[in-house]
Amino acid sequence: MYPESLKKLIFVLKRLPGVGEKTAERYAFKLLNENKEQLNEFVEALTDIQNIKHCKCCGNVSDDDLCEICKDKTRNQEQVMVVQEPKDIIALEKSEAFNGKYHVLGGLIAPNKGIMPEDLNIDSLISRIESEGIKEIIIATDPTVDGETTALYLSKLLNNYDVKVSRIANGIPMGGNLDYVDGLTLFKAIEGRTEYKKND
Amino acid sequence: MYPESLKKLIFVLKRLPGVGEKTAERYAFKLLNENKEQLNEFVEALTDIQNIKHCKCCGNVSDDDLCEICKDKTRNQEQVMVVQEPKDIIALEKSEAFNGKYHVLGGLIAPNKGIMPEDLNIDSLISRIESEGIKEIIIATDPTVDGETTALYLSKLLNNYDVKVSRIANGIPMGGNLDYVDGLTLFKAIEGRTEYKKND
Repeated sequence: MYPESLKKLIFVLKRLPGVGEKTAERYAFKLLNENKEQLNEFVEALTDIQNIKHCKCCGNVSDDDLCEICKDKTRNQEQVMVVQEPKDIIALEKSEAFNGKYHVLGGLIAPNKGIMPEDLNIDSLISRIESEGIKEIIIATDPTVDGETTALYLSKLLNNYDVKVSRIANGIPMGGNLDYVDGLTLFKAIEGRTEYKKND
Repeated sequence: MYPESLKKLIFVLKRLPGVGEKTAERYAFKLLNENKEQLNEFVEALTDIQNIKHCKCCGNVSDDDLCEICKDKTRNQEQVMVVQEPKDIIALEKSEAFNGKYHVLGGLIAPNKGIMPEDLNIDSLISRIESEGIKEIIIATDPTVDGETTALYLSKLLNNYDVKVSRIANGIPMGGNLDYVDGLTLFKAIEGRTEYKKND
């Protein structure tokens, strides 16, 4: 029903996460109505991202050999937050809650998908502990089955090194409703409760 | 925070309909993880759609001068359905509810956006009535303010020609709930009611 080139564009667009036939069609028709300049901008962007590097130190996406965060000497050099993907760094940076450095694993341990510890950037994390004088490692993998498995594996492994290891807290999200939160989250929220300090 | 090329890709992706910052980031990171071959496929598709033609007869998207529907002599040559965009043809074709030909206006009359009747493919519709021996024109623009304006304009204009003019029905969508439907739709559904024929 569609011209061949439109069919192909819809096929390619369907590879984007969460995009089905209908959405891909909608996107394709929008692109069809764009002018030559706008389409070329898109083509250029797709070509350019093929040159994106990964930071030699932490594994974050970067224009240079070292990413902006690793280059920044004003940041806390003794804390390293371990994350799954570069996009997790963006979320954390937006929150402005952390001013240390990062380490990107590039995935999570998932034996059922054939992803084993040796497939992740764990060796480079270990060598950073020694070479950079890191004092604390905060494990910030997602609280999913694979994320928890990876966190547990790392915590055991890091036991052998002279470094404080912590895990980001689970609990009720801010602005959330207690009665909408699942049981496991409530369990974690109670388990990880913080004590109010008494006034002296 | 992002490398320049990633920023640019996110910017371009945000032009897609309904895509905000978060979704664009998600798409960009997915594309970042695609291999060279997959990205080239995308680039090719974007380049190829610049060569898509518009059917000289009806204005539908097409690989050739004439679209598949206009070429198809087995279709009813006396009925023409008038639609806003080529994507409306796809929706109608999927329904298999219509076997005539189409005419794409390329937009809707919208004086507030500066779109006047002369900006649409109306002249070519008029000349088709005469040259193709069209007996019925079914106006299938959306039941929005602009769609209704355009339908009304066309119906008045076509009054001067020896052709039956109709408008697709408004009413309660199949599988919909009466109590969820807005008042104007209910009004149209009652106004356009069809009578059950009595058994003889």
